[in-house]
Amino acid sequence: MVDPVKLADAMEQMQVLLQADDLDGAAEFLRALHPADGAEILSTLDPETQAALVTRLQPVDLAEVFGQMDAEDAVDVVQHLDEEALADVLDEMEPDVAADLLGEMEPAEATAVLEQMDEAHSVAPLLAYPEDTAGGIMNVAPPSLRRYMTVAEAFAFLKEHYHDANQVFHLYVLDRNGRLIGVVSLRALILAEPQQTIEEVMRREVISVRVDMDQEEVAQIFARYDLLALPVVDHDDRLVGLVTVDDVVDVLEEEATEDIYHLAQVSPDAAVFAPVADALRSRLPWLYVNMGTAFLASMVVAFFEDTIAAVAVLAVFMPIVAGQGGNAGNQTMTIIVRSLALGEIDVRSAWRAARHEFVIGLLNGIALGISVGLVAWLWMGNAVLGAVIGLAMLGNLIVAALAGVIVPTTLKRLNLDPALASSIFVTTATDVMGFALFLGLATLLLRWLT
Amino acid sequence: MVDPVKLADAMEQMQVLLQADDLDGAAEFLRALHPADGAEILSTLDPETQAALVTRLQPVDLAEVFGQMDAEDAVDVVQHLDEEALADVLDEMEPDVAADLLGEMEPAEATAVLEQMDEAHSVAPLLAYPEDTAGGIMNVAPPSLRRYMTVAEAFAFLKEHYHDANQVFHLYVLDRNGRLIGVVSLRALILAEPQQTIEEVMRREVISVRVDMDQEEVAQIFARYDLLALPVVDHDDRLVGLVTVDDVVDVLEEEATEDIYHLAQVSPDAAVFAPVADALRSRLPWLYVNMGTAFLASMVVAFFEDTIAAVAVLAVFMPIVAGQGGNAGNQTMTIIVRSLALGEIDVRSAWRAARHEFVIGLLNGIALGISVGLVAWLWMGNAVLGAVIGLAMLGNLIVAALAGVIVPTTLKRLNLDPALASSIFVTTATDVMGFALFLGLATLLLRWLT
Repeated sequence: MVDPVKLADAMEQMQVLLQADDLDGAAEFLRALHPADGAEILSTLDPETQAALVTRLQPVDLAEVFGQMDAEDAVDVVQHLDEEALADVLDEMEPDVAADLLGEMEPAEATAVLEQMDEAHSVAPLLAYPEDTAGGIMNVAPPSLRRYMTVAEAFAFLKEHYHDANQVFHLYVLDRNGRLIGVVSLRALILAEPQQTIEEVMRREVISVRVDMDQEEVAQIFARYDLLALPVVDHDDRLVGLVTVDDVVDVLEEEATEDIYHLAQVSPDAAVFAPVADALRSRLPWLYVNMGTAFLASMVVAFFEDTIAAVAVLAVFMPIVAGQGGNAGNQTMTIIVRSLALGEIDVRSAWRAARHEFVIGLLNGIALGISVGLVAWLWMGNAVLGAVIGLAMLGNLIVAALAGVIVPTTLKRLNLDPALASSIFVTTATDVMGFALFLGLATLLLRWLT
Repeated sequence: MVDPVKLADAMEQMQVLLQADDLDGAAEFLRALHPADGAEILSTLDPETQAALVTRLQPVDLAEVFGQMDAEDAVDVVQHLDEEALADVLDEMEPDVAADLLGEMEPAEATAVLEQMDEAHSVAPLLAYPEDTAGGIMNVAPPSLRRYMTVAEAFAFLKEHYHDANQVFHLYVLDRNGRLIGVVSLRALILAEPQQTIEEVMRREVISVRVDMDQEEVAQIFARYDLLALPVVDHDDRLVGLVTVDDVVDVLEEEATEDIYHLAQVSPDAAVFAPVADALRSRLPWLYVNMGTAFLASMVVAFFEDTIAAVAVLAVFMPIVAGQGGNAGNQTMTIIVRSLALGEIDVRSAWRAARHEFVIGLLNGIALGISVGLVAWLWMGNAVLGAVIGLAMLGNLIVAALAGVIVPTTLKRLNLDPALASSIFVTTATDVMGFALFLGLATLLLRWLT
């Protein structure tokens, strides 16, 4: 039994070898690790050590290690190889991964490397598709069967054409024009009699997607239908590629991280130990945008400065009204953003969701409004103050509910990422309206508050 | 080619059939859909219609539909079946899915149904494992090979024992004690010569996990090593089950949703169109907890009420200092929570992360402090006010950075979900410290502010 390697232990061993200047030993150690672990460790080393190690490894080993890195990280490491060596490595990689890596390189350099590659014919067609579409995550179409073949012929075909293929689950059946007409599982093939025809053992219902479908939608289809592989067709229904579940697992993690970071207003390429300059780039701009909207809210407060000067205790409760609106708005917005991402709702459901959230906001607002009103009354001994804060809370929770639906669905309708900017707009709405409702009401009822 | 069904269209057709009272037609329509779509539609119907439809469908069809539902939703629907009918349905399901469903039922009822099942022997052992562990998402161990078998014998074995198995990618090889010693891919078997022994074609390195590993860790291993199936062993290394990638895709979505909702302080079972009572249950308690912490911050403001009465303009800037701290703390916390979830850092990295975030917080604080200080100075014409708000901002951004690391890593160390309560503690820290720093400094420098 092999336990998943403890990365921290492997890194320590690597450090020992490097400190002893045993570069050959370090390269051999890296090679012996699972490529996923090797990739992780290689990314953490300084450029000089990376160069020393990658030039000591065989193309086939490097291909596996680079295959496990993000394309962006891999590009940093492959610069230590010359064009010819890199072409050899790329020849050994899965075509979709090689295409991603080439896509991250300078176009001129990528073309030069591609010219040196033996497998250019599998990789070049994939470069045409945007990275985040079905075309961007698919591999070239696998060799496919014809319906009049026998099972025995199919086996022979398989032995001849599939010697290298890594993950085969299904064989696809095409008509003479390359259109997808059926699918046979390996298991069905093994269980069938040799003289049966493919037409007899194939299923005719094949779920497939178009080459330009967004990768997040592709991932949803995998999750929804429990698929292992999904054929990709062009606009004439011709089979052009195959997306496999291992790519989709990565897409799911990537898209979830992106949404989580966007909701917290961090750029999705943020990493925990990113260089400080990168960290600032991925966060400071968002904080400045927030500061802009915070000043907007400040102007509302400034408008009521005389009221606060007269009743300073309003400043005590002011942040509660705005803050609770922000929290409730964040709850609604998060549910809507996640449901949009999982395909549980679409923009057509926006109106229904808004009505539903309005009811929830109303009830939350009544509950919280009464509670906060009572506390304020008992604490400060002024019933009118309690009423003002309670009513402002109710109003702001309704604002929060509506903003929490309207903002993300509107962004989605505009083909923008709903996770991206929703929290800025929702918080602005709840801050501005929270302060305006609370201080406005207080100004109207000022004579009972002093 | 089959496009993924447009759910909204299918729902409309279903409504047409139901409004015409054509229950047989509706049941047939449901049966003809992909089970994933059927499950989705069935969940949205009222209990009476559900009952009418499920009693019209065959066990094998129901098994597929229930297999696509969350166990919790499925439990609501299966109550329309009697014990015997339900046992027939469960017999047709994947054992891990049947076990999840039984696990959600009342124990007495589950036992009664289990007794009626033919496949109880595959399902009962799975009931012992907690739902969110490797044991909870695995299926019973598949029939396995012995190393001295020939490839031809293995084919015969496969035809005899695997007629029903749904997703076979690898065959596992056990020693006489049931310990896992190797693995053979179907592809390797097809490409091998019939007279070779399994020992010759098997790989000896098999990644496996223990039965009690958390499902999130299991999912990480799948993603990391691009696996399709992962054997599960007990504490004596004996093969007890198999987790397949389709279960992991669901785990990944489930865990990402859970973290996203926890970060927004929504219970993870929240759904966009949940009944209002459920929606309140999943959100209102969090808002009350927040209200409690907001009052804590209010008390700090109340402590400085005299200062505000003297310089009401402080109330204008007070929310900016606290709010920006909250935003920056949320950024740091989210990066830490996500990195913990993806296994990119563990609690041992906390100290290093805290130092790293301290530097980022310091630089963010200097940038934002200078900006907000200048704006305040120019707007209100008071340089000391600008200095007070700038320094408070700097201090609060450092508080935010430290709280953003310390809170989630401490929760993780206590074996609590870091996503769950982090934002409450972080926001409390940044609100309380934001108000205290700003109003405290203002009180010290009061004579230059009036």
